[in-house]
Order: sequence, then structure tokens, then C-alpha cells
Amino acid sequence: MTSSNSSLLDRIAGPADLKGLADADLTLLANELRTEIIHSVAQTGGHLGSSLGVVELTIALHAVFDTPRDKLIWDVGHQCYPHKVLTGRRAMMKTLRKEDGLSGFTKRSESEFDPFGAAHAATSISAAMGFTVARDMGLPTGDAVAIIGDGSISAGMAYEAMNNAGAEGRRMFVILNDNEMSIAPPVGAMSAYISELTRSSAPDIKTLGADFEAAMPGPLRAHARRAKELVTGVMGSNETLFEALGFQYIGPINGHDLEQLLPVLRAARARATGPVLIHCCTVKGKGYAPAEKAADRYHGVSAFNVETGQQSKGKANAPSYTKVFGTALSDLAKTDSRIVGVTAAMPSGTGMDIFAKQFPARTFDVGMAEQHGVTFAAGLAAAGMKPFCAIYSTFLQRAYDQIVHDVALQNLPVRFAIDRAGLVGADGATHAGAFDVGYLSGLPNMTLMAAADEAELVHMVATAAAHDAGPIAFRYPRGTGTGTILPEIGEVLTIGKGRLVVEGSDIAILSFGAHLEECLKASALIEAQGLSTTVADARFAKPLDHSLIRQLVKHHKALITVEQGAMGGFGAMVLQYLAKEGLLDGHLAVRTMTLPDRFINQAAPDAMYADAGLTATDIAATALQALQCQPVTVLS
Amino acid sequence: MTSSNSSLLDRIAGPADLKGLADADLTLLANELRTEIIHSVAQTGGHLGSSLGVVELTIALHAVFDTPRDKLIWDVGHQCYPHKVLTGRRAMMKTLRKEDGLSGFTKRSESEFDPFGAAHAATSISAAMGFTVARDMGLPTGDAVAIIGDGSISAGMAYEAMNNAGAEGRRMFVILNDNEMSIAPPVGAMSAYISELTRSSAPDIKTLGADFEAAMPGPLRAHARRAKELVTGVMGSNETLFEALGFQYIGPINGHDLEQLLPVLRAARARATGPVLIHCCTVKGKGYAPAEKAADRYHGVSAFNVETGQQSKGKANAPSYTKVFGTALSDLAKTDSRIVGVTAAMPSGTGMDIFAKQFPARTFDVGMAEQHGVTFAAGLAAAGMKPFCAIYSTFLQRAYDQIVHDVALQNLPVRFAIDRAGLVGADGATHAGAFDVGYLSGLPNMTLMAAADEAELVHMVATAAAHDAGPIAFRYPRGTGTGTILPEIGEVLTIGKGRLVVEGSDIAILSFGAHLEECLKASALIEAQGLSTTVADARFAKPLDHSLIRQLVKHHKALITVEQGAMGGFGAMVLQYLAKEGLLDGHLAVRTMTLPDRFINQAAPDAMYADAGLTATDIAATALQALQCQPVTVLS
Repeated sequence: MTSSNSSLLDRIAGPADLKGLADADLTLLANELRTEIIHSVAQTGGHLGSSLGVVELTIALHAVFDTPRDKLIWDVGHQCYPHKVLTGRRAMMKTLRKEDGLSGFTKRSESEFDPFGAAHAATSISAAMGFTVARDMGLPTGDAVAIIGDGSISAGMAYEAMNNAGAEGRRMFVILNDNEMSIAPPVGAMSAYISELTRSSAPDIKTLGADFEAAMPGPLRAHARRAKELVTGVMGSNETLFEALGFQYIGPINGHDLEQLLPVLRAARARATGPVLIHCCTVKGKGYAPAEKAADRYHGVSAFNVETGQQSKGKANAPSYTKVFGTALSDLAKTDSRIVGVTAAMPSGTGMDIFAKQFPARTFDVGMAEQHGVTFAAGLAAAGMKPFCAIYSTFLQRAYDQIVHDVALQNLPVRFAIDRAGLVGADGATHAGAFDVGYLSGLPNMTLMAAADEAELVHMVATAAAHDAGPIAFRYPRGTGTGTILPEIGEVLTIGKGRLVVEGSDIAILSFGAHLEECLKASALIEAQGLSTTVADARFAKPLDHSLIRQLVKHHKALITVEQGAMGGFGAMVLQYLAKEGLLDGHLAVRTMTLPDRFINQAAPDAMYADAGLTATDIAATALQALQCQPVTVLS
Repeated sequence: MTSSNSSLLDRIAGPADLKGLADADLTLLANELRTEIIHSVAQTGGHLGSSLGVVELTIALHAVFDTPRDKLIWDVGHQCYPHKVLTGRRAMMKTLRKEDGLSGFTKRSESEFDPFGAAHAATSISAAMGFTVARDMGLPTGDAVAIIGDGSISAGMAYEAMNNAGAEGRRMFVILNDNEMSIAPPVGAMSAYISELTRSSAPDIKTLGADFEAAMPGPLRAHARRAKELVTGVMGSNETLFEALGFQYIGPINGHDLEQLLPVLRAARARATGPVLIHCCTVKGKGYAPAEKAADRYHGVSAFNVETGQQSKGKANAPSYTKVFGTALSDLAKTDSRIVGVTAAMPSGTGMDIFAKQFPARTFDVGMAEQHGVTFAAGLAAAGMKPFCAIYSTFLQRAYDQIVHDVALQNLPVRFAIDRAGLVGADGATHAGAFDVGYLSGLPNMTLMAAADEAELVHMVATAAAHDAGPIAFRYPRGTGTGTILPEIGEVLTIGKGRLVVEGSDIAILSFGAHLEECLKASALIEAQGLSTTVADARFAKPLDHSLIRQLVKHHKALITVEQGAMGGFGAMVLQYLAKEGLLDGHLAVRTMTLPDRFINQAAPDAMYADAGLTATDIAATALQALQCQPVTVLS
């Protein structure tokens, strides 16, 4: 792992340069590329494991297909680092996931080799079908290739796409990157058939699946076996689920062996007339021992020491909101047997793993299936349980209809723990929790809270557990809390009641959620100008604290709302209330500070909020400007 | 079809009364129940075909299971009329789908026999799993039974649920109501095995699937065969997809034969230890010749003559918005080969059937798969096509994440034709298009229009076709237009520009969408009070027409926004703009009129809007009250 010969890689300015290399050189190139990525991610951190798993596959795809005319669509995009290195972005890899740097995912604006960006799961087959149809209609685009993991392919959306693609019968390619199963070295029958494939007199590609399967080594781990059964249909059958859906199926093949990958891809590209699925088995973290040995295969890592694999620790003065949530929920569950947890394939990301350790039988990981997860929770609630559905703000978008139709409309007490609300840092715009306040606060029956700090989060978990009258949601940001003292026991908050944090006159700042700290800083800036401020924590976007809002309106000359979310959220709710009550008609200057009407690129969260115009300075300036403008003359 | 002997049905006050009937009597009861439903729906209209398809199944389920302790969960709910009749709602059937009457779907507030309401597809298995887990955790609930059609089970959400339910392995039941396949009368082997089932020495239930299958009649219609392959995995295999997913599979059985249904359900109930899927073949419209003969099997009908099957025609002075859309799109497509249409299993509902008649190769029905449909459209757009994605407002909720993550974030020019925006009438709250303005207008890059009338819709179709700069959506209501003259060719509207319809002073009414007519009536009411009004049609919720809004603010004492949607939509956007610009700080009274913060029950659309407080009288009253309150004193 020390030597870093990159003589071949140095010759690759783009995929076209792969065409001149012999197959054996491509294997050498894979070694260089793998080493490069390990050393690069050791500096930047990032999604190492999945990228190491597709080094050979990436080389093979670019060597065989004609990118960018042919469209490689990487599902989710965690695994795209080798692709970035090969497509002209090698020098930029040191900026990965940093401000103004390369995205951690594929991104259309970054390269013509990224025809369709991603970050959420299971979109690739649908997008590939779009390119495929466009090609068939005469647009100048080549073949579309979706590369999707065995996790993503279990999401409902992937099933919908395969169902449709199979029925359409158009030439397109799906690479199933199956890293649940680490296969043994290639055996004879498989190699023989692969060689056969490359000759024009080869047997029809469709018949190869069964033979490949016969060549598989014996007993597989139970989990892997189940995964394979799910994706291939039925063990021992010559026909797979994919074939039933109308795909030609080839596999499984060893995704780390270019001597298998290249001829299979070449044959598929030369011969396919309809949709083809190529089932590749890969190892997450392949070729880097510390990753291969780790339970998560170094899925996402911070910067690390290449020799030891030791990851650098971030500063952790305060516990993460995620951990506070998991712990608070576990504490409550000790005395409330109706509490159960639901996660959609994110137990550790959501803190549900903490709950699961104490209550394994009361924890439900439904897989990458937010739609099902929410309606499952609705069923639990209808039966009398107290389900806590812990899903990131951005992923909860997947279950919006289920929240409307199954939860809110039936007024069922599902508890939504919405982690990663607001801007999230290195994962960028695709993972921003920008819209949940807007998409939830318009729903009848919904109660919506946001935690100003981690102590508030503890109270809100307790409040949600106690609230049986209907659905309730609470949002909180990514990262560590403010370091405030945590309560032993969460207090059940009065629904729809906020709190005054600082009392003053002149200007009222009404904060919803974790921007309270910034609002207090703004207050200090304003006080330094000789003006008095009130700072209030709304706690609830729905129902609003009408009494608190009226007090703020009555006793101040300006009211500024602040939230970590898009337009149409908390501030909009406050304005609509004020308008309805005629409280806007008089003397008050009101401003609603939200995320701006554009997507915010990755950076440190503070930098992202600065980009968004939501620093303490911005808040103070807005408040002072509002005060000066009041009363304002209407402009023409 | 003339005699209506209901001597058995008259004895059924609830499912408990079924327990006392002999099996042969249940068959007689089925005849009475079928006749009852035909005559009942002939009076009210409704979803006849699906309900006729499950008469025997409904009786069998209630006879065998212990409802309401056991939970029957009807997917979608179109087929629940027999269930309603048997569960104490027979006398109310004449109020079906009418104001204050029975819902056309299952509804928790209506009956304890409706444990989980529905209307959107593919939610039933998830909900059933929720009840199942609650039972296993000791809550007093019995077995959960999901009854789902072969259409719904192809939606991604159903796949997610089966995947999870199979892995959990808990005792629960899924009835696959497969009405694509009309099977022949039962044959020997099948009957023999069914009889066998009811004896305690019967072979393990798990082994029956293959034998049942062997007993199937020979060649099936191509479509039916494909449907069966999709749901059962592989033809000729002893193991089905359901079994691979962890379900026990029984079927297919004749869903109209109680001599098959009763023993199978009894055996399954007696013996199941894990998830069981029972595959029932039924005929949509069964037992009513005009329905069986019709192409749509009388899926949804208006009132009809029982003898002839002739449906009463509604008044149709103006074309429906749906038809106007389909025609306008087809006209444009004649000269723009990049226009393609995408529908999610609703070609006739969305008017895409009109387009498909002229451009079959450019029309894509992706199935009940809104998620895939939208990302497929995003792929088409990324490749340079002009996809029109026609999905009802309420169903577009299913694709919210795809709109955010695949379309808006990448700024891809997908065109969303949003039919059924606003309140929709007899389908009630589950189908209301209440939230789209809110969930779309907060998204960066999105352009959002609403059509004031059918001529405006023609312009907006043209505008959407011409708009390649990013995503664009236009919403329009269910039903017929205003009768205005349609333009020969749609005009490409200037993005973000509204129009003045009536010019006056005093009060400005700013309408977004099809409530313009009501706003004009309100204007007349206000003028009758001696005040002058301006009425403007915003056309765009995003981007807002800042110049128009400033003019309205400058020249009027009150501004009233009106929209057919929930809070957090158009009015909220206007308020946030006014607040940002300091235009609220002075002299103006503003009110935003939206749907109220509750779900609106079914009635005629006008009655629903009256319930919502959005009549011309409501608008006028709000405007006059705003004018009187200006300037208002702040209340404490």
C-alpha cells in the first residue's frame, strides 16, 4: 500500500484513452486506480467502500462503452470516485465534498460524463429508460447503462422501473452490483462460457444465466443466499425474476475480474436487442484490508491513515442530535411498551441502532422502503401502538403521499423523527432537509415541532410519545448539539406553545428550530446598536402559538421569523395567520428569513448557511432594515 | 335481473349473522348481494365493476374471519360495496358518494369494520403488517387480511411491503384479487385438494400451490399469462415469487366459487404460521352482463338503467379540462416531434388517451408507478425530449421526492400536467388536489401555473411545451370548463406574468387558477356595495408577477388572494414576497383565502368549496371585512 506507481493512470486523460490499452493493462490500471482512490480518500474522507468495490467495473464499462455518448448512470452515486478519476476529474479529487469542490455524487453540472445526477437510491433504471427512449426517437444519445446496488434494487421504485423497462423491451443495460455476496475465484465453466460469448458463434446470450449459475460455488452465507434469491427469483430455476420481467439475465459474474467483465460487457453490447441485466458480485472495500475487515466496509469515512486505516476523529464536545434522539427514545420505551421504532435501512444514521440494542423486537428496519415504512407505521398506530418513524428529512420526501393519505387524512398518531433537517454539509443539496416544514405544515391534523437544541429534542421525543391525538413530527439538524445540559427526563411540552428566550422591545425574532443560537447572536448584534430585542423559540410550526405571536406583534415594531428551511414553511404559516387575523394591516414590519430560492451547494454547514444568507449578521441586518423601513411607502 | 328476493340478505345485520348460515346459503346470499349492489349502484353511480368482482370473496372473508377483531383491509377501496352492505351500511348505500353519505372507499370514521381507509393504491399490505405486528406485541387485534388487486400489486410500494412482510415471517394474509384472468370452472384436481385442505390430516398448506397450478386450464390470454408470471414468478416452477419473498402461496383459485373460497380460507386461517398469499381469480363486473361486456367492466359508472345498462349522461355544455389538455397536447405534438406523453395507469383519466390515439409510439403508460414515471420523464428531458407527465395532483404526491431530487435539483424541463387540482367531488378528501401548490412552489427552479379556464389551459400547454429552461407545471380542476371559446392555437405566455381581468380601485382580488370565475362573482357582489374592485389572474404562483403585485398593492386598500389549495401555497408565496420587499409594513390589508386546515368531505364540488369557505360570498365578505379593518388596532 506504500508504492504508488501510476504510470498507466497518468496516461488516462479520459475514457477514450482506455481504448488503446490491452486488457492486461486494464488490470494493471485497476491496481493503480485503487491505490489512487485509497490515498485520495485518506486525505478527504468520503465513500470509500463502495468506490473500491467498483474499480474494475468502472474501467470495464468505460473501456467497452462509448461514453459520454453512451450514458453511465450510477445509482445513488457513492461509488462514483473511480468514474470521476477516469473522466478528467483526477486532479480535483482532493476537493471532494468540500466547498467549491467535486460533489460526492454524480452531478450533471460537473461533467458531461455524468448524464444524470443522483444521491437518493433507485432512480437509475428509470433515468436510463428515459435516455433509451430518447435514443429510439432519434436523439443523438447512445446506450444507457444503469449501475445499481443490491440494496437499491430492493426499493419499490427500482421494481417499478424494471417492470416497465421489461414490458417496453428496448435495448438497455442494468448492472446489478451485488456486494452482499463475495464470490470465490472464478471457476472453469464460467470462464469457458465467457470466452464463448465473445465469439460470434456463441450461444444465445439469454441461455447463459443458468450455466453461469451452475458454475457458482457451493453453499453461500444465509444472507447472501436470500439476497440472491430475491434478485434472481428462484434458486435452481433456469429463469430468473429479471427474465420474467422481460430482461435478459447474465450472471453472476466476478465483478473484480476484468477477464470476466470485459468479454461479458463486450458481448452484451454487441448482441443485446432488449433490456439486459448483468449480475456482478463485488466486495465492498475490495483491495484495502482495513476496509474489507470493517463491519461497514468503510462505507463513509473521515480522513484516515492509509497504513493503519485509523480514521481521524471529529471534535465531539456535544453529543449528536442523532444519539440524543436514540437515547431519549430508548429511555421512554423502558416504561412504555407501546413504543416501537421504524427505520428505512438507516439504523445507525437515525440513532435507531441505539434503540435496537435495547429493544430488538420492537425495532423494524423495513429496508430502503420509506413508502412502506410510513404506511406500516400508520397500521401500527391504527392498532394502538406508538410508532416512531425515524427518517431523514430528504428521504421522507419519498413517503409524502403516505404521510398525506395514510397518516394525516386518518389522523393516526405516527411519530416522525426527522433527522438531517436543514443544510447538512458535505452531502450537499441532494441531502438538504429543506422542504419538510413546507410539505408537512400544510397538512390538516399534523403537529410539527423543531428542536432548538438537544435538550429541546429530549422534550420533543417525550411530547411525541405522549401525543396520541394525531400525527406529530419533530425536526432536528445533522451534527452535534449546542452542548447544553440534557434533562434526565424529557418534559411533555404543551402542544402549540412556544417560549420566550430573551425579553426586550423594538425587535422580535421568532426562531423555529436549531437556528435559535444564531438568532441569539443576532440579538446581541442588534443590542450593540442600542436597540432591544426579544428572542422567542416557536417550538411549533403547527399549531402556531397564536398568543405568543400576538404578544410579539403587540409589543414590537418589527418581527423576524427565522427557520432552517425553504419558503412556504414556518414563516409562511406565521404570515398567513397574521393576515387572517388582520394583524398585518397596521404598524408592524415583518420579514420571514428562510433558505433562498435556489439549491445550496456543499460546504461546511456554517458556510452553507452563510451562502443562504442566514448568519447572525444577516438576521441582524434584516431586522434593522425592517425597523428602518417601518412605516414604508409603497413603491411603484 | 328483475326479481330482487333478498330474504337471506334481510337477515344479515352484520358479519356475525353469516356464521349461522350453511355454505350453500352463502352462495344464495351472494346472488342476493350481487343483485342488491347492481340495483343500488344503478341509483347512485359508483365503482360497480370491482365490487361485483368480489361479492363471493367478501362473503367468504366475513364468514371465515372474525371481523372486526380480524382486520380486512381493502386496497384502494373501489371494491368495498359488498363489504359495506354486509357490515351494517346497507340502508345507507343510497347515499353513496353523496354529501353526508357513505364514502366510496373504506373509511375509519365510518365503521369499525373499516380498520384502515384507502383510495390510493398499494397501501394495504403495509397497513396489514402494522396490525400484525401490533397483535404480536399483545394488542387486542386479530389477523390482518389485505385484499389487493393485480394492478395495485405491481406498484413499488406493494413490492416493498411484501419484501418486508416475507422477511418478518409473521402470520398475515394477502388476498391477490386477480381480475385480469377469467378462469374456467373449477376442475377436478383443484376441488380435490381444496376438500383435502379442510381435513386436519391435509398436506402442508405450502405444498398446494404447485398442484393448484397444475390444475389450471391450458393456454391463457397473453396479457393474463404475463400478469400471472409477474405475480407468481415463473411459469412451471413449483416455487413462486411470493414464496421466494417468504410467503406461502395458494392458488390460483376461482374467486367466484364459495365452494373453493370457504375451505381455502378456513384452512389458511386454521393453519397459517407465517405470511400467506391466496391468489383468487375474479371477473370484474361479474354477474351483470352489460358490465362483463364493457371494455372497462363498468369500473366507474354514473347512475344507469338496470335492464339496459344505459348510463345517464351528465350535462356537458363545455368540454372537460382533461379533454382540452389531451387535444391541445396532440395539436402541439404534430409539429414538435420531441413531445412525448407519460401517464401512470390513467390514460383516459388524464386525457393521455387522446394523445395516444394520434401518437401511440410517443405515449408511455408506465403503470401504477408515479415514482418511476417522473424519473423516467427526467431521463427523457435530460436526453433532450419534451416529456409531459400527466398525473393527478393527489397521485403526484407519490412522486414528490422524484420531483425534488431528479427534476428540480437538476433543473430538467419535465412538464407536469396536474389534473384534478383542488376539490374533486364524489371521490372526497382522499382524491383532493389540495397540496400541490405548496409542495411545488417551494422548489427552486420550478415554474408553476394554474389555469383560470379551459382557454388558459390551452395557453399553458403551449407555454409548457416552449419552456425548456427548467421544470414547469400547470394545474387545472376536475370537470368541465367555463364554456369559454377555445383558441385555435395556444399562446406562449410570458413566464411570471399575470393579467388584469377587471380594473378598479379599493379592493384587489388576485386569483390563482380556476376560482377566477368565483372571484368575478365576488367582485360583482362588492361592486353592488358601491366599492370598486380589481380582479387579476396571477397565472403563475412561481415565479410571481412582482410588477402586478406591486401595482395591486399601490392602488388598492385591500388585497385578497384566492386559490383552490391548502395553506402554504400561492397566498403564502405572495405574503413572503410582500414581507421581503417591505410592502406589508404600511397601509394595506391582506388576506389569503385557501382551503381550511381540515380535510373536506365528499359533496358536489361547489358544496365542497362552500364547506371550505371559498364561495363568492365568502370572498366578498373577507374583502369587505379587510377593508373595514384597515388600519386595524393590534389586539392583545
